[in-house]
Amino acid sequence: MNWLFEPARAIDLSFRDRAHAHQQQLTKPAGSLGQLEVYAEMFAGWQSTIHPHVEHIYIAVFAGDHGVCQQNISAFPQAVTTQMIANFLDGGAAISVLSRHLNAAFVVCNTGTVKPLPDHYIAHPQWVDKHIAYGTADLSLHAAMTLVQLADALAAGCSVVDEACSQYSSDQPLQLFIGGEMGIGNTTSASALCAALLELPSIDVVGPGTGVDARGLLRKQSVIDAALLLHKAILNEPCEILRCLGGLEIAALVGSYIRCAQLGIPILVDGFICTAAALMAVKLNPSVRHWMLFSHCSAEPAHRIALNVLSAEPILDLGLRLGEGSGAAVAVPILQSALLLHNTMATFEQAGVNGG
Amino acid sequence: MNWLFEPARAIDLSFRDRAHAHQQQLTKPAGSLGQLEVYAEMFAGWQSTIHPHVEHIYIAVFAGDHGVCQQNISAFPQAVTTQMIANFLDGGAAISVLSRHLNAAFVVCNTGTVKPLPDHYIAHPQWVDKHIAYGTADLSLHAAMTLVQLADALAAGCSVVDEACSQYSSDQPLQLFIGGEMGIGNTTSASALCAALLELPSIDVVGPGTGVDARGLLRKQSVIDAALLLHKAILNEPCEILRCLGGLEIAALVGSYIRCAQLGIPILVDGFICTAAALMAVKLNPSVRHWMLFSHCSAEPAHRIALNVLSAEPILDLGLRLGEGSGAAVAVPILQSALLLHNTMATFEQAGVNGG
Repeated sequence: MNWLFEPARAIDLSFRDRAHAHQQQLTKPAGSLGQLEVYAEMFAGWQSTIHPHVEHIYIAVFAGDHGVCQQNISAFPQAVTTQMIANFLDGGAAISVLSRHLNAAFVVCNTGTVKPLPDHYIAHPQWVDKHIAYGTADLSLHAAMTLVQLADALAAGCSVVDEACSQYSSDQPLQLFIGGEMGIGNTTSASALCAALLELPSIDVVGPGTGVDARGLLRKQSVIDAALLLHKAILNEPCEILRCLGGLEIAALVGSYIRCAQLGIPILVDGFICTAAALMAVKLNPSVRHWMLFSHCSAEPAHRIALNVLSAEPILDLGLRLGEGSGAAVAVPILQSALLLHNTMATFEQAGVNGG
Repeated sequence: MNWLFEPARAIDLSFRDRAHAHQQQLTKPAGSLGQLEVYAEMFAGWQSTIHPHVEHIYIAVFAGDHGVCQQNISAFPQAVTTQMIANFLDGGAAISVLSRHLNAAFVVCNTGTVKPLPDHYIAHPQWVDKHIAYGTADLSLHAAMTLVQLADALAAGCSVVDEACSQYSSDQPLQLFIGGEMGIGNTTSASALCAALLELPSIDVVGPGTGVDARGLLRKQSVIDAALLLHKAILNEPCEILRCLGGLEIAALVGSYIRCAQLGIPILVDGFICTAAALMAVKLNPSVRHWMLFSHCSAEPAHRIALNVLSAEPILDLGLRLGEGSGAAVAVPILQSALLLHNTMATFEQAGVNGG
């Protein structure tokens, strides 16, 4: 797994400076487009151009099941993971609708569901089968993954990004990667990861997920307490934390983020589970942080904490908690407006307007 | 001005309920699309349909000058108001760029600039001339407007909305109105309006506007203090507050919002100055509030206060402070994503997914 620790591609900060200088010439008070100016400058650095674009977008949803579901910590039955994969491929899920709307490339990568997908989906062009195991082991009783499973899941994320890149060229480069996730039970895994990485008590990291009630919340909390106690000997080592408390799809997200940063592809991080994966990626390889934007703050209480630790200012705060990459997809038009304004507004000189 | 007090069109709440019931059937945990679900339900009520759309958008920027500029309260010279009108019409300003991007109808309505627009713009199809005065009087020394000027400015906003409506049909209805503003000095006027309407001291309502420095801030504050003292006898009457402390373009915004609500056209309120106009419209005619959505919270300190008083949860919070309607235009794709998800996601039954 040495590839995880290779540095991210360097960013040409001179283009950020030049984009910033360009912003000062546009017909508006300096700084009056707020974060939109920041986004334009970030993309300028990422793309090494004063006039960046974000039109070529790749969305990969990683799916996997969680052994911890046997502890009754989700509002939905485990079969829903596979049912939702079918819904993604049939085009009826939120992320399917949004991918079409953005004209984005869209794939679903199975890292390990309990139930197989019906046969007629096997040849679906948006289906990537990297099945590693029939779900993880129950993280409250065992390590969630073996070392081989962890390495395979990280590599699955890496290979999805490599495959994505192979579909673009230097003329038509990939300009944004969005990772999504689907896995009944995965807020419990993400909460456990955040508790371990941020050294927080379970009560600070447990939220409603897809909608458990108060008793379900208490179950989630005691499951996480049990897991943190069971695995306490390894809680100082990020790779081991990911192996013992993570999920196959979460590890694939971690691998995809690290690979994106190494290849120089900007990452738009989705919700709580993706942010937990982003936090893990940054703990493993801090250089990855510089290629990340954060799309939204969800209703999960640990999400804000993780965003703060990552010094991340999310674009949106709309109470989203669906996952799938949907929050990131909803935020994309904000980035597109930011770049459009940056690229096409008139300068003071062009418009004959007195500067401030 | 009796027309101001006619009630807003009634909203058919049964369609909100039916849209809410539809949301519960979509393949996602109940409530997991957060505010996006709320927006879809609001539009369902406004349009009296379970499947609402927001494609036909009308953006009107109202421009006017402010006599209070002689107190040196802006970072920009007054000539910029007219220069920016030319930039709007030439297509180089932020709101011009965003209007094209949204495929929205776009007009600029002059309610009273000091400098005339160059002759060759007179026949421009996006130009609406309702010139009432060569700017307002200095609100720190006089009433900003006469009663006739106020009535004319309110009527100008009303007539822009009537003209907008005449371009649509019941088959292709106008689905969203965005008002914008341009007027050097108008954050001082908007701050004075907020201070008077919300009974706040000047220090709570004064912000950087387009970018004055610390000394400029103190000047703005003392100008507002002088105005509140001068006009203290009328501070219990909203129409008089608007006449004495407002601006021609702000009064036109007030008129446009009230007319939209009376005709049943949803309003997306832009930044601080538009929110001050919205607050005034609601004080004059509380029924107008039900047709308003608020696009963003800006960097102006009084904006958050006014939003709270209006029980408004803004869509975005990105530190925008440009005006022109630009923040509202940036927020439109969020509404469009909300309605697209609402209208096209599969139901649990359609997708064969187990509900929660």
